[in-house]
Amino acid sequence: METNVQRIKHDIEKLAQFTATPGKGVTRFSYTLEDRAARSYIKEQMQQAELAIFEDAAGTVIGRRPGEVEGPAVLVGSHFDSVKHGGAFDGTAGVVVALEIARVLKEENITTRYPIEVIAMVEEEGGRFGGGLLASQAMAGMVTEEMLTESYDAQGVSLAKAMVDFGLNPDIKAAQRRPEELKAFFELHVEQGIILESEGIDLGLVQAIVGMREYEVEITGRPDHAGTTPMNLRADALIAASQVVQQVRQIALDVGGGAVGTVGRLEVLPGAGNIVPGQVRFSVDLRSHEQTALDSLAAKLKKAVQAACKPEGLTYAITDKMNVEPVSLPSHLRDLIAKEAKDRGISTRTMVSGAGHDTQVMATLTDAALIFVPSKDGRSHCPEEWTAYADLKKGADVLLGAVVTMANQISNDI
Amino acid sequence: METNVQRIKHDIEKLAQFTATPGKGVTRFSYTLEDRAARSYIKEQMQQAELAIFEDAAGTVIGRRPGEVEGPAVLVGSHFDSVKHGGAFDGTAGVVVALEIARVLKEENITTRYPIEVIAMVEEEGGRFGGGLLASQAMAGMVTEEMLTESYDAQGVSLAKAMVDFGLNPDIKAAQRRPEELKAFFELHVEQGIILESEGIDLGLVQAIVGMREYEVEITGRPDHAGTTPMNLRADALIAASQVVQQVRQIALDVGGGAVGTVGRLEVLPGAGNIVPGQVRFSVDLRSHEQTALDSLAAKLKKAVQAACKPEGLTYAITDKMNVEPVSLPSHLRDLIAKEAKDRGISTRTMVSGAGHDTQVMATLTDAALIFVPSKDGRSHCPEEWTAYADLKKGADVLLGAVVTMANQISNDI
Repeated sequence: METNVQRIKHDIEKLAQFTATPGKGVTRFSYTLEDRAARSYIKEQMQQAELAIFEDAAGTVIGRRPGEVEGPAVLVGSHFDSVKHGGAFDGTAGVVVALEIARVLKEENITTRYPIEVIAMVEEEGGRFGGGLLASQAMAGMVTEEMLTESYDAQGVSLAKAMVDFGLNPDIKAAQRRPEELKAFFELHVEQGIILESEGIDLGLVQAIVGMREYEVEITGRPDHAGTTPMNLRADALIAASQVVQQVRQIALDVGGGAVGTVGRLEVLPGAGNIVPGQVRFSVDLRSHEQTALDSLAAKLKKAVQAACKPEGLTYAITDKMNVEPVSLPSHLRDLIAKEAKDRGISTRTMVSGAGHDTQVMATLTDAALIFVPSKDGRSHCPEEWTAYADLKKGADVLLGAVVTMANQISNDI
Repeated sequence: METNVQRIKHDIEKLAQFTATPGKGVTRFSYTLEDRAARSYIKEQMQQAELAIFEDAAGTVIGRRPGEVEGPAVLVGSHFDSVKHGGAFDGTAGVVVALEIARVLKEENITTRYPIEVIAMVEEEGGRFGGGLLASQAMAGMVTEEMLTESYDAQGVSLAKAMVDFGLNPDIKAAQRRPEELKAFFELHVEQGIILESEGIDLGLVQAIVGMREYEVEITGRPDHAGTTPMNLRADALIAASQVVQQVRQIALDVGGGAVGTVGRLEVLPGAGNIVPGQVRFSVDLRSHEQTALDSLAAKLKKAVQAACKPEGLTYAITDKMNVEPVSLPSHLRDLIAKEAKDRGISTRTMVSGAGHDTQVMATLTDAALIFVPSKDGRSHCPEEWTAYADLKKGADVLLGAVVTMANQISNDI
């Protein structure tokens, strides 16, 4: 039993056409015309695979294949929204593979003990409204009315209004799933990194998704004339900021265990070549899959900012922007997937996901598994994003096996 | 014989009203309505002081008081254009003091041996068209047709068109002055630094104006996902750039002798908190009054950029943006000014100007002197820019004495 690479390729290419930026990558924001077109295509595929189609209050498309018994369902899928000028694979690959699994089950006329649901989620990226992970959070009952009314897109349209205009049920709580109706959640996603490619490994089995601390640091000195102010009479905010940039890397290396630290955004004010920087604002992104490491990174950052500012006579402010806890995924699903891969001669390694995924939210509801397929050159969130179809098929075949095995495994709790 | 502080104050306050940003400092760009209004006021003052008024091809207003003989003239003045949201004193103070000198000479009915010219220059700051020092460069014959046709303001108007629209002679070469018709150039300017104020000294006698090297440095790495890219697989352009920022300061301190180095502008691309910086572009401003020091600063910068980029696997480009040689000013004019100050009980010190001034261009044509009056808190190029009128009067009195002495000193060359 295997998936059909041509159909996977066709779906990926077809869905890539539903973009607001033709020729400049996939831009498919949630609740837009491009979403509508992609959604129609996904529903057609579900219909042909003889799935029962539902749409929840967040706009997630659910295609359900009944089981022999009305027990808890095995969910498989990902998201089909994209970032601005993104690629054809991020999220979409996981949706397409789930559709293909449903097609194979129909063709092979396989009925599993428990139902299987193909899940096509939206607003994972937060490309339009910020935040992201909306559809999975809605399933987990984490979305509040305020989140919908107080998030806006670039045109000032609230998330709540966009959803209602799109025809969705305004009661977001209706999207909530009960843990007892779920048996497992499987997501296939592109790695968005270069580990699998550089090691020549087919599949990554994610054991944990990193927690993240995001800060905005503002360092304030005094803007002076770059020509008339001697070096020893300056209060140059960029001197301290650049020291912190160096330290953020050092801190991540010191903490180790795969921890990462990044200053990705940095603004200098007033920002003229002949004026000593009076103020610098920059982001700090710290990630680790271990809570203690995350705490250590955060503490070291604060020390580093203070150490950089104090001798220069600069003041500073550190603002918390985001705080996401790390999530560990259950080993028994990973073992099951590893066995399916081994049976097919497909190589795997366990890894940590440095990016956030719907799986981390679904893991609060049910047993969840996330598998990665290689990303060419590690590129993602860009038009060049690419995964070889042969690689995608390997992931699809393993996932097919794992989903079927899981959907046949008798649950203790029913 | 002394200047009148009330008239100086009146001129400063009056000219400050000719601004495009009332309530937000003086914004008086060249060849604008504000320039026109200020220019009219200056001409009125020249007329009342019985000066013969000329306007050269660059738009410099010249008020000439004849001497006993038609020999080389002593020039005194500064510029009356400003930066955006600048102050009431930068440049304007030197123009006003020159006008006041002419008024005193008229009142006292003093005729010097050689003519005296009050000079009110434009486009020194480069606020509208970039570059700056235009009027003095026109007098020195350094302005080419290309400079005028290829410089644009923010609205896309060329410098050439703005000048013609303003009614100026399109032949910029007509502004050129011959060295033999000039005896000396005196400029009074606000210090724009905090040395005089912090030392409690009345006047700065500038012995040299710094040379300047301005570079644009572009460091290129690879934009990667901040979560999925391990620290050891990154090519983070900001890591190297921040090391260069630290080094620019260290280089200036190592070279010493008052050398300064500044990174005042720095942009990170793509500039998102969750993306490793793929490219950083920044300015480097290096200044010293010594040619060898300047060469050393430049060489050390290039080494520092290479040293920061190489181990990180980053590429870089360093582009020359400006290269101004340091200018030494003749000691005999400084001695003359120092004597005038001493006779009046006014304290002086020699100093280096860290900012560029029209004097450095005029020094290529004739003997030139630049004197500084204190800047409150060293602030300049901002609405808070301030020099106490009592301090300005001290400078004016000394300059009055020096100009008259010089204009009576028999030249060897005629």
